[in-house]
Amino acid sequence: MSDALVIKQAIEYRGLIDVLMSDKHFADIVLYQGNIINVLTREIYQGDIAIKGKYILVVGGAEKLIGPETIVVDVRGKYLSPGFIDSHMHFESSMLTITEFSRLSIPSGTTTLVADPHEIGNALGPIGMKAMAEEASVVPNHVHLVVPALTPDCPGLETAGYDVTSKDMKEILNYPNVIGIGELQGFSNAKHVYRNTPEVITDLVASTVYAKSIGKIVDGNAPELFGNELAAHIISTGGTCSCHETTTKEECVEKLRQGIYVFMREGSTQRNMGECIKAVTEERLDSRRCILATDDMVAEDLEKLGHMNEIVKRTIAEGTDPIEAIQMVTLNPSTYFGFHDRGALAPGKLADIAIIEDLKEMKVEAVFLEGKLVASQGKLLIDMPKYTYPDNVKNSVKCKGITEEDLKIKARASEANIRCIELIPDQNLSESLELTIRTQQGTVLPDIKQDALQIVCVERYGRNGSIGKAFVKGFGLQQGAFAESVAHDTHNIIAIGTNLKDIVTAINHVVEIGGGIAVTKNTRVIEELRLPVGGLITDELTGSEVSRKIADLEKSVKEQLGCKVHAPFMHLSFLALSTSPKWKITDQGLVDVNNFEILPPVI
Amino acid sequence: MSDALVIKQAIEYRGLIDVLMSDKHFADIVLYQGNIINVLTREIYQGDIAIKGKYILVVGGAEKLIGPETIVVDVRGKYLSPGFIDSHMHFESSMLTITEFSRLSIPSGTTTLVADPHEIGNALGPIGMKAMAEEASVVPNHVHLVVPALTPDCPGLETAGYDVTSKDMKEILNYPNVIGIGELQGFSNAKHVYRNTPEVITDLVASTVYAKSIGKIVDGNAPELFGNELAAHIISTGGTCSCHETTTKEECVEKLRQGIYVFMREGSTQRNMGECIKAVTEERLDSRRCILATDDMVAEDLEKLGHMNEIVKRTIAEGTDPIEAIQMVTLNPSTYFGFHDRGALAPGKLADIAIIEDLKEMKVEAVFLEGKLVASQGKLLIDMPKYTYPDNVKNSVKCKGITEEDLKIKARASEANIRCIELIPDQNLSESLELTIRTQQGTVLPDIKQDALQIVCVERYGRNGSIGKAFVKGFGLQQGAFAESVAHDTHNIIAIGTNLKDIVTAINHVVEIGGGIAVTKNTRVIEELRLPVGGLITDELTGSEVSRKIADLEKSVKEQLGCKVHAPFMHLSFLALSTSPKWKITDQGLVDVNNFEILPPVI
Repeated sequence: MSDALVIKQAIEYRGLIDVLMSDKHFADIVLYQGNIINVLTREIYQGDIAIKGKYILVVGGAEKLIGPETIVVDVRGKYLSPGFIDSHMHFESSMLTITEFSRLSIPSGTTTLVADPHEIGNALGPIGMKAMAEEASVVPNHVHLVVPALTPDCPGLETAGYDVTSKDMKEILNYPNVIGIGELQGFSNAKHVYRNTPEVITDLVASTVYAKSIGKIVDGNAPELFGNELAAHIISTGGTCSCHETTTKEECVEKLRQGIYVFMREGSTQRNMGECIKAVTEERLDSRRCILATDDMVAEDLEKLGHMNEIVKRTIAEGTDPIEAIQMVTLNPSTYFGFHDRGALAPGKLADIAIIEDLKEMKVEAVFLEGKLVASQGKLLIDMPKYTYPDNVKNSVKCKGITEEDLKIKARASEANIRCIELIPDQNLSESLELTIRTQQGTVLPDIKQDALQIVCVERYGRNGSIGKAFVKGFGLQQGAFAESVAHDTHNIIAIGTNLKDIVTAINHVVEIGGGIAVTKNTRVIEELRLPVGGLITDELTGSEVSRKIADLEKSVKEQLGCKVHAPFMHLSFLALSTSPKWKITDQGLVDVNNFEILPPVI
Repeated sequence: MSDALVIKQAIEYRGLIDVLMSDKHFADIVLYQGNIINVLTREIYQGDIAIKGKYILVVGGAEKLIGPETIVVDVRGKYLSPGFIDSHMHFESSMLTITEFSRLSIPSGTTTLVADPHEIGNALGPIGMKAMAEEASVVPNHVHLVVPALTPDCPGLETAGYDVTSKDMKEILNYPNVIGIGELQGFSNAKHVYRNTPEVITDLVASTVYAKSIGKIVDGNAPELFGNELAAHIISTGGTCSCHETTTKEECVEKLRQGIYVFMREGSTQRNMGECIKAVTEERLDSRRCILATDDMVAEDLEKLGHMNEIVKRTIAEGTDPIEAIQMVTLNPSTYFGFHDRGALAPGKLADIAIIEDLKEMKVEAVFLEGKLVASQGKLLIDMPKYTYPDNVKNSVKCKGITEEDLKIKARASEANIRCIELIPDQNLSESLELTIRTQQGTVLPDIKQDALQIVCVERYGRNGSIGKAFVKGFGLQQGAFAESVAHDTHNIIAIGTNLKDIVTAINHVVEIGGGIAVTKNTRVIEELRLPVGGLITDELTGSEVSRKIADLEKSVKEQLGCKVHAPFMHLSFLALSTSPKWKITDQGLVDVNNFEILPPVI
């Protein structure tokens, strides 16, 4: 904090003391006789909240602070909660800018977002993260970033747009609104990383220890780790960390015992809260390190269901005490992140307040942000500021178009035994299969009957032009192809299709529009979504428009191409995730995740 | 943290990961199958703790980490707890150096001390605090300082050796081991300070906001404050604070509700835990912001009873769940202070461990500090390093000797109505009395029959030579006098006596020895204790020797002078405390605490 900001803050606090101690000054607003949700003591009792400027003055009895110009709002029967915190999320998953995401999120009572710009970090490196940090500075809600310490996740097995390492930490960690290092995927598969790329661990530790030394936090990411591996992961984060990929009660119990803040994930795609919460509802463990987070939210869910209010509602429905559930989106995360200015209703805290109708439905009636009424009955009452993304984040697709020749998988015999990724619906994980396919003129082409489609991943940053090729089973396409520049976590262009022509057309269209999604049939583009920012985010559409556009895209893939999986774009994008077993595709080829190696598509 | 320290830490952590992940490296020590007190989840279960160097490697199963040279200690049936934290204490109260205090404290399992050098800060300002910060750096236990932002507590009503204000914060807050600002007494009497010296509040806020801006904590001190005054106090600390002077259940409930970390005080003199803990045992409030602290401990208690283990024992005896009580000296304070490296038994934490025989008596069998066995069966096993206090903290008494003439309280009539402080045994508070005393040659002399002794306070720092004079009832002295350079909080020389000659002799002896305590009878010094460091601490005696010396002093005051109060030196020292009602004595005179004014001793 600069000297000027220290002085400004001191003057503000001194002013609050005058209001409290003299008879001449009064509160701006008094929320009169609501049911105070006190997350500090785990109580609910009737009381007032007095607000002056951005701050809460008093919680309890505010009668002395009501002056002739004080706005008194009768909130009898309503519940007053601190604004909610989403402790781990990616804006990129929604394809929305921070501004458009916030427009949908604020009316849900969610006033703080901690975002991991992991996707744009892979695509653009510091440039992308800085742009996001700048957008975070202009929105009215509190948006903080936790940045990746390593891109790509698996050096050697995939190509990102930029290689983030410890050399970047001093710069990135000092951007505005950056509060730490995000999910530490580089050491999630602890055993494999230690065996194959131990230098990655050394580099990660250099980053995390530096981050901690300047007072920043470090999120971990320790799915299915126990014992020595879990301990090693915790230490790699510099001591204390979180994990947002805990999926079983047993795992949750163990992580809480080891001091990890368990981010119980409950978003649009992965939902682990129901299992994790049993550590509290069944085992009665101290829940102070339990936190709720969404990880990935799509625009449609934000619009129709809500944001953290919905997650709290589901947590209460699992049998959690309502105040304890609300602690998991207020006091617990504010403690973890060191947000001393919020997370509870108390004097001197920012007046971020959700007014809730009842604790079962968690319907948020009104939202205050820094003392200002910003939403009511689900509607945003304020104008969102304009942020224009700079050009340098809009030209992330630097590769040239490709040809059919580039995609051909060669084989000499008339039949080939090929390696085929098998999709597991609704999971990041995949299975491995071996199939036999006829070759045509020395090329192994997709076999629609066996549902062995071709899958390719094209390096899109102009770094090496690599193209990974393999087969995939499970989508059920009967014709056409689709491609997208969203492909976790390096976000090269991933595509599947029934024939090479349509795949080439789809990929080249994604290149042409500078990133996005394209659906092709009979060598014609039948649907597209432009994602100009890093090839991941649209700055052209609102949340509602994105929801409708994705519905259109999915409809075309299902009805016109015959796809039989729901959310096909999301499923495809996770087939590039080389940190989650078993077989995945990157620009470097077919990845055997467990063994850290590239396999040829033809055996 | 310097770059070099960051690198050192990263290498240490990287080494721990090698031990955990490879088959070639092993733990140094394994505590085998103890009862793990898991303060994170509030559980006790059987498990191992593996230690490497300073750190805990694993908590749970350590069998894979036992190598040929690993020391395996069978702790079956014993309880393993994180080392204890005393969150608020003053070394000065024990009259011991940090080294000698620690010698008595470490065997109790107390591995971290957060000390407020408020007394030496009043006496010597930055010079004294810096010396203490340096001593804190050399002892093997963790000693941190929280420094005063204001000395004296009541500018205008008393004279300290140095006037600490916000101008000093940049320097002092950056001394080694200084983690924040200590008890904020300057705004404890909120109403009176606001009315009389509002500029003090402005200065305090400047200090606290600056401290928070550089990541430091700020303790508050809000005895008996409620409502708007409590809110103003919280805001004056920059938002979040603690309070170690909470004395009733009602007060404790309210402070917890307002987000204050309540330091439930339970030391040698003031004992408030029994009342405060009812907020937990009766009201069942969330106890995560409840913390145990001693404030003042005398050497004798440390030696005979123990330190934080004893306080935990008493807290358990009040009906608190044992793990919950232990959280109050481990996890809760580590969260408050941001000690990410301790406060729980988990991978990567410092191996500060207390091995406890049972949870009722809280007898500590052995203590590990940073992986090293430092105490066993109450005995310290290590040599303490030598720290030599510099000369500039040893000459704090700069005033000249005084004469009888200086102490005379004049009155013209043959009788005088005088103002008399009335001692309340075992409290900091005092009462006010008016008495009539005969005058002798224009002077109002002590009246032994009415137990109206003379009390004086002599400015000892050579700043203005002021002498405050008044009367006091309650000590019951029949002859002689005693004087001491310990007089809260400015620590001028305070004395009481039955006649001016003995008072003068006692005061002049304290001046002569450069600070300490002197007892006189028939104009002769009959007992003395030298306190060379700031006039507050001895660097010549061990804890046991200090205990014996104080016993001798008290015996002489009781048996030879006829004093009827126990702990007479402590009682006398608090009669100078001008922040606690009702009447007190400072070098400026008789202070009417509630009205912030100096009253003449003769009406």
